[in-house]
Parts: sequence; C-alpha cells; structure tokens
Amino acid sequence: MRIGVVSPARPIDPSVESMMQALVAVSFPEVDIVFHRQCFLSDGHFAGSDAVRSAAFLEYANDPAFDAIWFARGGYGANRILDTVLPQLNDAARRKTYLGYSDMGFLLGALYASRIGRQAHGPMPSEIRRKNDHAACVSRALSWLISGDRRSLEPTIDARPHAAFNLSILTALIGSKYLPDLTDHVLMIEEISEPLYRIDRMLFTMAHATQLKGIAGVRLGVVGDVIENDVVFNDTPEQMIVRWCADMGVPYLGRAQIGHYAANCVVPFGVA
Amino acid sequence: MRIGVVSPARPIDPSVESMMQALVAVSFPEVDIVFHRQCFLSDGHFAGSDAVRSAAFLEYANDPAFDAIWFARGGYGANRILDTVLPQLNDAARRKTYLGYSDMGFLLGALYASRIGRQAHGPMPSEIRRKNDHAACVSRALSWLISGDRRSLEPTIDARPHAAFNLSILTALIGSKYLPDLTDHVLMIEEISEPLYRIDRMLFTMAHATQLKGIAGVRLGVVGDVIENDVVFNDTPEQMIVRWCADMGVPYLGRAQIGHYAANCVVPFGVA
Repeated sequence: MRIGVVSPARPIDPSVESMMQALVAVSFPEVDIVFHRQCFLSDGHFAGSDAVRSAAFLEYANDPAFDAIWFARGGYGANRILDTVLPQLNDAARRKTYLGYSDMGFLLGALYASRIGRQAHGPMPSEIRRKNDHAACVSRALSWLISGDRRSLEPTIDARPHAAFNLSILTALIGSKYLPDLTDHVLMIEEISEPLYRIDRMLFTMAHATQLKGIAGVRLGVVGDVIENDVVFNDTPEQMIVRWCADMGVPYLGRAQIGHYAANCVVPFGVA
Repeated sequence: MRIGVVSPARPIDPSVESMMQALVAVSFPEVDIVFHRQCFLSDGHFAGSDAVRSAAFLEYANDPAFDAIWFARGGYGANRILDTVLPQLNDAARRKTYLGYSDMGFLLGALYASRIGRQAHGPMPSEIRRKNDHAACVSRALSWLISGDRRSLEPTIDARPHAAFNLSILTALIGSKYLPDLTDHVLMIEEISEPLYRIDRMLFTMAHATQLKGIAGVRLGVVGDVIENDVVFNDTPEQMIVRWCADMGVPYLGRAQIGHYAANCVVPFGVA
C-alpha cells in the first residue's frame, strides 16, 4: 500500500511528515507514505501557486504507483485548481481513493461529480499534531485507507449512499457543475468558526438548492468554535437544521460524528 | 407620493424615523413617509419574529396607498421570509418600487425573479445617521424614488439591463429559484467586512454558477472593512475579479460606485 500526500490549499509543517513516518513505522509497517515536497512550500496564503499545487496533485493522482491520495490539510485553495486538474486526470487517477475534508471538499465533490476514483471525508495528516489524541484520529483514517476498516466509519452509516461536507464548502459548490448529484444520499454537514447567523444563511442556501432536492436526509456533525455575535442569535444549530430541513422537505436524521475535532470519522462518498 | 418603510432583517433606532421626518419636511415636502412599527421591534437578532416581519412586509407591499417600499436597513434575515411572502403578494405589490441593498438583496432578487414590482439597489433610511454626510446618501435615494432623478443612478449605467448585489447575498441565492435570470445584465457586486480568502471563494462560486453563464459582464463596487487574515492573501479584490471573470468567460467592466459607503448610488434592476 502506497499513499501519496499533497496539499492543494495551505502548507503543513515538516514535523507532520516526521511524526507520520514514526507512526507508520511502528503501527502501520505495511504502508509507504510519501509526502510531496509541495506540501511544505509557501506562496502567500497557499502551499505554492495554483500551478504548483495543480502539478503536484496531478503528478501523484496520475501515478499508478500510488493507491491513495491523502490530502495533508485544509485551509483555503482547493477550488482554485479544479478547472485545471479535473480534465487532466488519467486512468490511474480513476482507480485511486481520495481522503480529506474541510476545504478538500471542493476536490472530493468535484471528483465524485466526475466519477473519478473513490472519495471519503475523514481525518488528514496534519491532525497527527492534535494534543492528547495519541494519533488516534489519523490512525482511524489510515486503518480505513489500508484495509477498509469499518470501525473507522461514521457510526450511523447504513446501506444508503452518503456524502459529507463542511457547510461553507458545500454552499460554495452549490450552483456549479462541481456539486455532485446527491439524489437519495444522506448528506452530513459540519462547520467551524462561523457566527450563527451565517450558519443559518448557509442552511437557507442548502435548503433552497435546486440541485439538492432529491437527497434522502440531512445529518448534523459538530458545529465548533462558533463566533459570538453582537446580539445573541435566536436559534441553536440543531433548531436551525430542523427548521431548514422542514422547509427543504427532507428529514433531519439526527447528529453525525464528523467535524473539526478528534473524533471525526470516515464517510465514504456513495455506498460505504 | 407615499413611501412605506419596513425592516425584514434587523431593527432600527427610533431616531432614524425622527431624523427622516425632519429631512422630508424640509427637503421633500411632497413625500409622506410611514415607518411601520415593526421596524422598531426586537426579537433576539431580528426586528420581530419571521411571522411578524412577514406580516409587516405583506401589509405595506399589498397596500395600494403606498407607491414604494423602502427597506429600513440590512443585517440578516430577509431570506427567512421569502417562502412566506412571495406567494401572498397582490396586484398593488406588483405596481410598487422596492429599494434597499445588502441583506435586502434577498428580497430584491426574489421579487425580480418573480417579476413583482420594480427593484433597485440603493441607500436605506438607517443611513441618515451617517456622520458628516448631511443626509446626502438618503436624499440620493429619495430623489430617485420621488422623481426617478437620474443623477442618483450609478454613473456607469447605460442602456443595458443591470443588477447589483452584495456578494455574500448573491452567492447565498445561487442555486435557488430566488436568483433572477440575469442573462445579458451587467452584474455589479460589493462587499463589506470579509477576509480576502472568503471574497475569493465567493467569486469562485459566482464564476462557476451555471445560472450566471449569460451575464454581459461584471463591475466591482467598494470592498470595505476587509478583515485581516493570519497570513497576507496573495491577491487584491481587483486582481481576484479579473481572474474569476476570465474563468467565467465574461468581461470585467471596471469599478462601480456602489457599496456600504456614503457615495452608494442607485442601481435599478433591469433597464434604468
């Protein structure tokens, strides 16, 4: 098993690679993890220019020697390479698994929409630095990548197709060709560092998206680090999701164990 | 001329009404401005519950005694009444002009999409409290409402149809039935209090919106009070708009005199 790591948004610290190689040597000796040098580049906000990040992703995705692409971290920037990379993916890219979340939802969504490879929402290498987690988070991701370990899956996943997105990324994809057809899917959403009025506004956009009319239901992951408003907002995230699902005419199915936290689980796109 | 003021998002201070009545008595004696009591209500974040705000808007919009509806201020919340109010508007509502901007773009867009009345992006009553402006901003709006004064119009407006939106509100409408058909329109956008990476992400959504493929071009209004990022972002708003318009395949037509500032001009939706 050979896993390639690229970073289509922001750079990671070199300590992530050394910690990951130490973990793999001890706990996952059957795996070879290769970090592309692009992960450590810095060009303003980004881990290299759009061209550099596109080239790194294409190099590893199109390389038949890799079985999976594991996105190093989120941030902002994966959307800026979609138009460049999607048309250049080859047959090797179509046989791969792609794992990440947050801003990486742009790539996961676009790949799923294009039926290229297997996509999953789940922990990323940079999270090996989570305090007091003892690499449990990234080990959950690795166990699934290596053997499809179902103990890594989000526990409510059933026989239906699923997809999971950060709400900001989902709404940024709505209206575009990069939003996959999620008809009959259970849609899981999570959010981080937003004020409640914005979460409400994004749920309005989700609820009124013509493209999402056919989904089977919605589950709410962790809504973390909510930014305080000047005025206390009227509703909690769970009250909001109940309201907007009703407006949308789809069932709210309850909570999901996904989000920007250590217990974040793996959600394969489609049937798990 | 009789103008009704309602506030579909957040409440205004009572001083706005007294200042406005004083201005009108001196400078626009031909106008009767009536503030609905709903403008001054407070229910958490909102100027009354969704039901109360819906009822106030419907009462004034459906009243043949009013010639225009002037939205008191922005904030957040107009999107939450769209499903309720749109189906209940009558013939009197169809003969009216609706003026406002920012969060009011939800109503302006939905009304334009439904071909109900005449809509315009422009200054709102709460802006009578702008420091050192001597009511120039709201007088610009009133002159246009009363006599269609073309000196109030955004100066680049030509014979083509136009529309103007806050970028956050435009992107929140994308993918829904409430986004009007803007084929052949010049689209003007403005933004306030966002970090640059989010502006870039919203421009991605605009550029990739299937619904906006046919627009004639884009103009950029004022991008104000930009929130600093932890890392300096690579591009300025003007560099971003050039890049995304190129990806979109529509011309970037230059700056527009709209936005959250005292010089904000009137942009009627459609042909001015």
